[in-house]
Amino acid sequence: MTNSATHWTLDHIREMDARDPLADRRDLFAVPENIFYLDGNSLGALPRATPGRIAEVIEKEWGEGLIRSWNQADWINLPARVGAMIAPLIGAETWEVVAADSTSVNLFKMVAAACAMRPGRRKIITETGNFPTDLYVMQGLESLLDGVDLVRVGADDIFEALDEDTAVLSLTHVNYRDGTIHDMAALTKRAQAMGALTVWDLSHTAGAMPVDLNDAGADFAVGCGYKYLNGGPGAPAFLFVADRHQEEIDPPLSGWMGHARPFDFAAEYEPAEGIARNLCGTPAILGLAALEAGLETFSGVDMDAIRVKSMALGDLFIDLVEQMCGDHNFTLACGRDCEKRGSQVSLHHADGYAIMQALIARGIIGDFRAPDVMRFGMTPLYLRYRDIWDAVSGMAEIMDGAVWRDPAFSERAAVT
Amino acid sequence: MTNSATHWTLDHIREMDARDPLADRRDLFAVPENIFYLDGNSLGALPRATPGRIAEVIEKEWGEGLIRSWNQADWINLPARVGAMIAPLIGAETWEVVAADSTSVNLFKMVAAACAMRPGRRKIITETGNFPTDLYVMQGLESLLDGVDLVRVGADDIFEALDEDTAVLSLTHVNYRDGTIHDMAALTKRAQAMGALTVWDLSHTAGAMPVDLNDAGADFAVGCGYKYLNGGPGAPAFLFVADRHQEEIDPPLSGWMGHARPFDFAAEYEPAEGIARNLCGTPAILGLAALEAGLETFSGVDMDAIRVKSMALGDLFIDLVEQMCGDHNFTLACGRDCEKRGSQVSLHHADGYAIMQALIARGIIGDFRAPDVMRFGMTPLYLRYRDIWDAVSGMAEIMDGAVWRDPAFSERAAVT
Repeated sequence: MTNSATHWTLDHIREMDARDPLADRRDLFAVPENIFYLDGNSLGALPRATPGRIAEVIEKEWGEGLIRSWNQADWINLPARVGAMIAPLIGAETWEVVAADSTSVNLFKMVAAACAMRPGRRKIITETGNFPTDLYVMQGLESLLDGVDLVRVGADDIFEALDEDTAVLSLTHVNYRDGTIHDMAALTKRAQAMGALTVWDLSHTAGAMPVDLNDAGADFAVGCGYKYLNGGPGAPAFLFVADRHQEEIDPPLSGWMGHARPFDFAAEYEPAEGIARNLCGTPAILGLAALEAGLETFSGVDMDAIRVKSMALGDLFIDLVEQMCGDHNFTLACGRDCEKRGSQVSLHHADGYAIMQALIARGIIGDFRAPDVMRFGMTPLYLRYRDIWDAVSGMAEIMDGAVWRDPAFSERAAVT
Repeated sequence: MTNSATHWTLDHIREMDARDPLADRRDLFAVPENIFYLDGNSLGALPRATPGRIAEVIEKEWGEGLIRSWNQADWINLPARVGAMIAPLIGAETWEVVAADSTSVNLFKMVAAACAMRPGRRKIITETGNFPTDLYVMQGLESLLDGVDLVRVGADDIFEALDEDTAVLSLTHVNYRDGTIHDMAALTKRAQAMGALTVWDLSHTAGAMPVDLNDAGADFAVGCGYKYLNGGPGAPAFLFVADRHQEEIDPPLSGWMGHARPFDFAAEYEPAEGIARNLCGTPAILGLAALEAGLETFSGVDMDAIRVKSMALGDLFIDLVEQMCGDHNFTLACGRDCEKRGSQVSLHHADGYAIMQALIARGIIGDFRAPDVMRFGMTPLYLRYRDIWDAVSGMAEIMDGAVWRDPAFSERAAVT
């Protein structure tokens, strides 16, 4: 990596923090002292309001309200209420989004339903480098459905691969590994010109940058609640169905919460009007309540301001790695141009795993993706420019002192 | 309803409570004062340990541990750890059960996978009166899969309906409405004699009575975490795969948590060894931790003792309704013989909805199932015989005073 033009000093950094319009948001989060948390793209930090809210749900709503809380505490509408909070972050109408299940399960619902809306077409097109669970879920669907083939192509070949035998284009908007951003509007337009439907996975988009599903004409989307939305470990995911498809879509996971009148206990399935038909089982109330508290950290925030700070944090990180660690054989695994990069910086290093373990031991928390990618997530709601300075300073000390060569840092372990 | 032989007095009741070997378990639960909670079959009561456990998960494990807690707090093994706690309650080995997703999603996985293990066979057999979400999920599967038909028969016709064109028999062990218990061993044996596989829904069984899946030779099972297992509203569900099928089963919801090495981020799905391949997306940690705390209330408890008390509570309830409300046109909607009845009492009454609302307003909480069934759940861990006496005494006052005729009690609302 080569040096950028700017030579950064701590004075620059202090000035950037002083001028940061999002600076006061950090107080909404309980980020531990002496931790530089650059993994909010994997698990968002804890909002300060969450413990109190969950204690209330458990002790008052469950403990005292018991079964009555389905009505009295309006648990029954929590999936729709949380969906409506996500909607403005992703360019959707409030009635087009609902929170439920996991991203994997929601992707299955949306891709299966989209295939059923394009009978006779053979192909689901996706990207070779899509997030593995997306690939796996679609492989499962391919095995289940006669006459449907999953076609995987490189990121640059997607446009050409779309043809009149394509039922569905299913892509993750921002790549989990290198942060590359797909052109949602152009790919959606091309897919639809071929008569196909689109399913966008917004796991690395929602809450990290503005996206406008309706402006892009997207058909369906899914996304993750535990990354940038700060919903907690394994938080419920969400799904989006464009208004124009809501009467036609018929997801195969037709559980009772998708029924028009679940409490009639009728023998025949009859899908609910609107987004509710995309629900399946009983809603996970603790997880949804925590996700609701996580989403409240976005209240009053302009997604454009988040994007501006996200890009500035990422650029600063890259500049500082160049400035402080220029001799240590890091290469960029993401775009240098912040406009083409999601809210993360990824670096290649042959010893990336051990280096990341040494960083984590020092409280500089990013993550590692095989075979050699170190990921650093930029979360503008709770990261300061000073955190980036301190994190890269610590990284330079680890590299200069070859701390990561300690055998303690070479054992592999699972980090999501 | 006719009077039973015994004329119950409060002295009898006090003696039964004094002799109850499970009496000390009630202290493990935070049941509110002046509430007679006969709806633990719909949502279990709050264990006293749960708020503290969840606060620890949120504040320490998530807030301080952040992403590191997937390893350090062993979140990654929580689905298997919770599954192993459920296993002894249902006659399974610890490695045959895992907690994940909702009952509806798990039923989809198990029935779809079982169909794939019996290619060429056309029928999924179920009961007309099965719980609606089971019926709906199987209707969705029928739409999705070519050459598979859902065949619904009455409870008494199941045995005869099983034939050599049957792929799967999918039943709920204890009927949600009338508490009827299927003969799991006999039906499993018959299904298997025809070459079919069985999927048992234990939602109204697990934690309420002993059941021995392996003794019955069951193939697959699913069940609910928020009823008798006390896991909280919308708690994760569980699934069981008999050891002999674990290498062959291949559920279509093939998310990354079912992969052999999820953190290799490989492009091709390769199912994990053992029960883990039946997982799908990222585990819901808050829900699983609450379910773990719920299951701890069973620690050291003999399921036979739970069954004995459950039957005694149910018999007492019926006797007292006969004794105190004999003139009020209730009829039994469940078996009089406690051996043939699950852990609930169900009554028919033409005005059941309004009566149930009046009961709830007085703190006597059961629930209503259309068109005319009032359900009262018997949960031996936290119900006293005295609660049954007080509940039926309150019911008698409501009936004698025609309190339920107040128009305030006639409006319909959703209660799961």
